[in-house]
Amino acid sequence: MSHTFEQKISELKKVVENRIYEIVNKNEPVTLYEPMRYAISSGGKRLRPVLLLLVNEAVGGTLENALDAAVALELVHNFTLVHDDIMDNDDLRRGRETVHKKWDANVAILSGDALLVLAYSALHSNPYPILPEVLKDFSRGILKVCEGQTLDKEFETRESVTLEEYYEMIDKKTAELFSVACYVGSILGGGSEEQINAMKLYGKKVGRAFQIQDDLLDVISEEAVLGKDIGSDIEENKKTFLVVHALENADEDQKQKLHFILNKKRITAKDVRDVIDIFRQTNTITATRNIIENCLNDAKKTLLPLPDNSAKHHLNELLDTIAKRNS
Amino acid sequence: MSHTFEQKISELKKVVENRIYEIVNKNEPVTLYEPMRYAISSGGKRLRPVLLLLVNEAVGGTLENALDAAVALELVHNFTLVHDDIMDNDDLRRGRETVHKKWDANVAILSGDALLVLAYSALHSNPYPILPEVLKDFSRGILKVCEGQTLDKEFETRESVTLEEYYEMIDKKTAELFSVACYVGSILGGGSEEQINAMKLYGKKVGRAFQIQDDLLDVISEEAVLGKDIGSDIEENKKTFLVVHALENADEDQKQKLHFILNKKRITAKDVRDVIDIFRQTNTITATRNIIENCLNDAKKTLLPLPDNSAKHHLNELLDTIAKRNS
Repeated sequence: MSHTFEQKISELKKVVENRIYEIVNKNEPVTLYEPMRYAISSGGKRLRPVLLLLVNEAVGGTLENALDAAVALELVHNFTLVHDDIMDNDDLRRGRETVHKKWDANVAILSGDALLVLAYSALHSNPYPILPEVLKDFSRGILKVCEGQTLDKEFETRESVTLEEYYEMIDKKTAELFSVACYVGSILGGGSEEQINAMKLYGKKVGRAFQIQDDLLDVISEEAVLGKDIGSDIEENKKTFLVVHALENADEDQKQKLHFILNKKRITAKDVRDVIDIFRQTNTITATRNIIENCLNDAKKTLLPLPDNSAKHHLNELLDTIAKRNS
Repeated sequence: MSHTFEQKISELKKVVENRIYEIVNKNEPVTLYEPMRYAISSGGKRLRPVLLLLVNEAVGGTLENALDAAVALELVHNFTLVHDDIMDNDDLRRGRETVHKKWDANVAILSGDALLVLAYSALHSNPYPILPEVLKDFSRGILKVCEGQTLDKEFETRESVTLEEYYEMIDKKTAELFSVACYVGSILGGGSEEQINAMKLYGKKVGRAFQIQDDLLDVISEEAVLGKDIGSDIEENKKTFLVVHALENADEDQKQKLHFILNKKRITAKDVRDVIDIFRQTNTITATRNIIENCLNDAKKTLLPLPDNSAKHHLNELLDTIAKRNS
């Protein structure tokens, strides 16, 4: 990871964050704008807007022309986090109380709604000549996120899901916004059709890698590092990549034990250890790491049609930092 | 109420509903699209899109040019209903179970979110030359609705609110979407600046009348007629027009009694009767009816700058039907 890369990312994050604070600048009503600011100030990698801006720059676009769309995407992402945390009953995010925990579910519903509206406001405040096109991509993307989150919740009540169903779910829930980021970034930057399609795929592959890694981190990372409940996916009976893979490769005994623990209402530290044992026995941890690596390698290949500039190099380096992330 | 008026309204409703069903036409995931269709099929007066289309026609616009915006507004309205019912813990709407009751809160959050996204999709699917302007009005309007609903919830935890605060709350929560309907309708129809401003005021006054009447119907209508829990505003300690007026005109004994009942967690039929008694003693029911009549009279006056056509007459007749509504 080069010094320039870190500098560049932190520079882009700062520009995005400054603009977001300009947008969410009202004070009244307190129980709307305070939770909104709280949600957006939780830090985070700002990966989606950074991706949008890097891709935009890589194909020759200017920062100013793409900033509103980048900011809109980050606001959309925060809207989904605030609502998902209610649905998944998560008390912590990045080490802090979630909005519905700090206030209540009603406040979280409303501030999530308002974040989505501000996302659209940010987007259409910029009179891009291609605004209708960009809006269409955004709305289609957000609808897919809703569909993906619905599938995620539906899968919690099912005994098992196929790998194909798993990919449909994460492609919608997670990869879609990454894909929209790269797609819209390349459109706004004036990329060629080949570049636009390549970047769409780059986003999808990065998004998949990111989600599968999230699945992995839920069981292997420390709560202190991840800043959220360890094993919460297991408690919620989430059909993560690890569960899907383990169920497909488990013997009858392992399968029965896994179902038993996943169906429990409250899980203990021992339950988590038992599940991880089954993951190890079924070679699931290794298979998960391999899949993440494959996705990132696929993403790397899509960078070929880009001109040789620093933004392209940063998109490459970003893949390495994602591979190494532990939170 | 003329035969033509009823025909016209039912015609417009049908056009709007058909287009909405075209938009919410997917089946999978089942727990996203089924609740969405359930929410939009609950009937209702479709007052906001009908207003938009009537105003648009009154200033000389065509139906086809304004239909997408009308549909978008109805979808926004349904998004707010689905989310508000969670927050207000309402089990019934128009005589049917609410979405969060029939499914659960998670399903209601997600299907509400998706309705909002589809509202934006409907709106930007039409490449109006003035799309950025219309989008701006919409987003500003929806944000105000979120603010109004936040105030409504904040007020539940307060002992009393001023009449001014009450109006700020209902202007945002309810009157704003009526105002946006009439404003956008007159813009899309190519109205003059005078007409646009008049219609914006018409919408605001109709919206106020509508909300204050809602407050009244919560205590005086039969559940069978209203299709929702009777006295639910009292149970939720809502600061309705009636509560604000009664508290301002009550003696110490009445005030104390009113506060006591409003602060109860569960209210009985006797509590509702007691509250209504205080409303009567403080002349609140009559004052409420007068205010509604005043709002509708104000609305009537705003119709002056409109050319003399059938749509203008329908906008006039609409005021009479609102005055008489009991659900």
